[in-house]
Amino acid sequence: MTNRRGVVAPPAPENNQVSRLQDAPAADRRQFLARGGAIAGALATMGLADRGMAQDAPAAAETSSLPPNVPQWSRQLGEPTAKPYGMPSKFETRAIRNLYPGLTEPMSAYSTTPLQELDGIITPNGLFYERHHAGVPQVDPAQHRLMIHGLVKKPLIFTVDELRQFPSESHIYFMECSGNPSFLPPYGKTAAEVAGLVSCAEWTGVPLKTVLREVGVDPAATWIIAEGADGASMTRSIPMEKCLDDVLLAYSQNGERLRPEQGYPLRLFVPGYEGNTHIKWLRRLHVTSQPGYTREETAKYTDLMADGRARKFSFIMECKSLITSPSGTHKLARKGMHEMRGIAWSGRGRITHVDVSVDGGDTWTPAQLQQPVLSKALTAFRAPFEWTGREMVLMSRAVDETGYVQPTIEQLIAARGKVSFYHNNAIQPWKVNANGEVTNGRA
Amino acid sequence: MTNRRGVVAPPAPENNQVSRLQDAPAADRRQFLARGGAIAGALATMGLADRGMAQDAPAAAETSSLPPNVPQWSRQLGEPTAKPYGMPSKFETRAIRNLYPGLTEPMSAYSTTPLQELDGIITPNGLFYERHHAGVPQVDPAQHRLMIHGLVKKPLIFTVDELRQFPSESHIYFMECSGNPSFLPPYGKTAAEVAGLVSCAEWTGVPLKTVLREVGVDPAATWIIAEGADGASMTRSIPMEKCLDDVLLAYSQNGERLRPEQGYPLRLFVPGYEGNTHIKWLRRLHVTSQPGYTREETAKYTDLMADGRARKFSFIMECKSLITSPSGTHKLARKGMHEMRGIAWSGRGRITHVDVSVDGGDTWTPAQLQQPVLSKALTAFRAPFEWTGREMVLMSRAVDETGYVQPTIEQLIAARGKVSFYHNNAIQPWKVNANGEVTNGRA
Repeated sequence: MTNRRGVVAPPAPENNQVSRLQDAPAADRRQFLARGGAIAGALATMGLADRGMAQDAPAAAETSSLPPNVPQWSRQLGEPTAKPYGMPSKFETRAIRNLYPGLTEPMSAYSTTPLQELDGIITPNGLFYERHHAGVPQVDPAQHRLMIHGLVKKPLIFTVDELRQFPSESHIYFMECSGNPSFLPPYGKTAAEVAGLVSCAEWTGVPLKTVLREVGVDPAATWIIAEGADGASMTRSIPMEKCLDDVLLAYSQNGERLRPEQGYPLRLFVPGYEGNTHIKWLRRLHVTSQPGYTREETAKYTDLMADGRARKFSFIMECKSLITSPSGTHKLARKGMHEMRGIAWSGRGRITHVDVSVDGGDTWTPAQLQQPVLSKALTAFRAPFEWTGREMVLMSRAVDETGYVQPTIEQLIAARGKVSFYHNNAIQPWKVNANGEVTNGRA
Repeated sequence: MTNRRGVVAPPAPENNQVSRLQDAPAADRRQFLARGGAIAGALATMGLADRGMAQDAPAAAETSSLPPNVPQWSRQLGEPTAKPYGMPSKFETRAIRNLYPGLTEPMSAYSTTPLQELDGIITPNGLFYERHHAGVPQVDPAQHRLMIHGLVKKPLIFTVDELRQFPSESHIYFMECSGNPSFLPPYGKTAAEVAGLVSCAEWTGVPLKTVLREVGVDPAATWIIAEGADGASMTRSIPMEKCLDDVLLAYSQNGERLRPEQGYPLRLFVPGYEGNTHIKWLRRLHVTSQPGYTREETAKYTDLMADGRARKFSFIMECKSLITSPSGTHKLARKGMHEMRGIAWSGRGRITHVDVSVDGGDTWTPAQLQQPVLSKALTAFRAPFEWTGREMVLMSRAVDETGYVQPTIEQLIAARGKVSFYHNNAIQPWKVNANGEVTNGRA
């Protein structure tokens, strides 16, 4: 079909049915476009009644936008194979990271994952959320070193290549910023603005405990202070018990090496702990008998309580869930059955249940969990719901394997007061108005 | 630490130990660099003896390349937060897709995933392998349509948005080209050249059976002919039994929408079947009572047997494995213990075992499988091995849940002759020479 100048002739119709479709008058073609019924019927196969969406479908409007039967891209050669590194379609303009609303300074800043545009549990590396304290250093892996010292028998310095020679592990884990979202307004419009500081990837690295065995940890050691090679020398203290459990010295994310904004060439990965403990561009592990009380765990990353005292070292990201579709700025295109989709996660292990509500929390029904349900990873859930054209409030509520139930914002405030900033894992309501427009139910 | 002009002062030493390290003469610093012992000891904790790698470590050579204790990137602000879509580090120059060796025409062509650079089971979308028959069309999702017609009660045309309204599923599945690799020379030097036409991702879409229920399939229907919207009108026939099993109309890959080179905005995903059946830019499903015997399943994608007859519709990608590290063009940096890493997969379900050999297949030992082990997905495996400085041949051999054992190339040739091209799932040997250099054991 290709001539020497690379021109492709339009494919011939393969059978009479296609010809009939092309030749049919508009009125006949319209029968192919009664798609509202298709959706309703499919949901009916889930055990839900077909509630007449066929008549709600905008069939006439869409007939006018019917594309040619053989579009231009079917009549010509496409772009060449083998871009060395591929990128999304130019039409995917909304699937991007954005600075958090109100933030304009890009060095100590964060950008969000566009959760309302995504499906499933894996976040593509290009859209993984970011939080930096002095911007993104461009570290040369050949020059980078990790030093482990302090209360150890044999202090050592490692190159990245040397760390890659240790026995490796790969795990799918979520990571979440402790301020996702804060307790304070503004609450945000989209799922990204509300809770886009959570993402999930497959991480590969060497278990920290393997390397600690190598340096020989003193029995008096109870903490490790981890320091990054960025301009902020981002520094956090991690309990030794966690370091000897599931912490990784991670060098890969979703198969490839870490991205610069995720700590290339080496980061600490602390499964289930708040994101700021996962020190990026990791250059130093100081083994000690006490925490560092560094700037990041005194001025920041403590939880001010109602009585004026601060809760410190509140590491674990508690059980949480979020409906991502439909969510703020989405619009339901028609009345009838829809599928609610979302993500749930817990820093303590596996998700066991997600319940959903369409009446603002008065009644709850179980959502379906997508396998695999992995420990400390995002779990995808979905549930059918009907929109009759009246206002409604959608909510999801997750439960983890410890039995912990995701709280309401009222329960959180009762426990911690209104001055708290971090660790807001409250149930997120989305309001659907009479036009089908979805907005933040807290705003 | 930041002044108004955005300049960051170098971080002060936090404790005396760092000061001592910085101030120490070179001879003292060298003790921190005895890293060979570190690796050996860590592998010893796996139950393996420390075989004296400390003396093999190039400590003196690496002392001369010791970077400054506070590198330049720790003394300054990095790059701003929130690139809308992130990219790998500029240092990751080898983690790219390449055209298959010998191919220069980029329209009907393929490019490979750099397996030798990757870890774990998820392939990042930018490095997912490609195979196109007329290049990559840039399809506008608002204009794209899927028509389902033929032996159905109610032929229908769907927009992509409409398909997204059906109940969805997400699954981690591998995809592999049937010619990965061919039986024929050249055999390739790297893992990518040998078998880089396999990748793995989390796919989201609507089960085809859900949409087929909608159009109402005639009981006489036994096949579906799927057609793409590319200039080649790439077309394959899929048995109805498979269509009613686990086939997806997929619109997302690793969370985000499909990449253009993976069929944006819609592709057929046929778990476990050869990649060419996963029709990209899917525009038409023709429900029939017989296969189409299209160009792609007559001139191509059949298996010529020794007796001159052709095996047709050999869809399933049989059980296979590949050691990716070390692999061709890698070099073992030192004698002693190393970790062998690789991937295994089967189009028939789960991997149950992977055995590895260091003596060219005379003896085999079990490798460790990384959880989760998912059906029709890549499974990561690893196993320790010792290199004493002598030539050795590394191999891996996978077994799936049906009991099928990955064959040797001799077994495959005995069964199918030497004229076969597709479906080579033979055991791949890698030779390590006396210098530690790794080459293709078949070449």
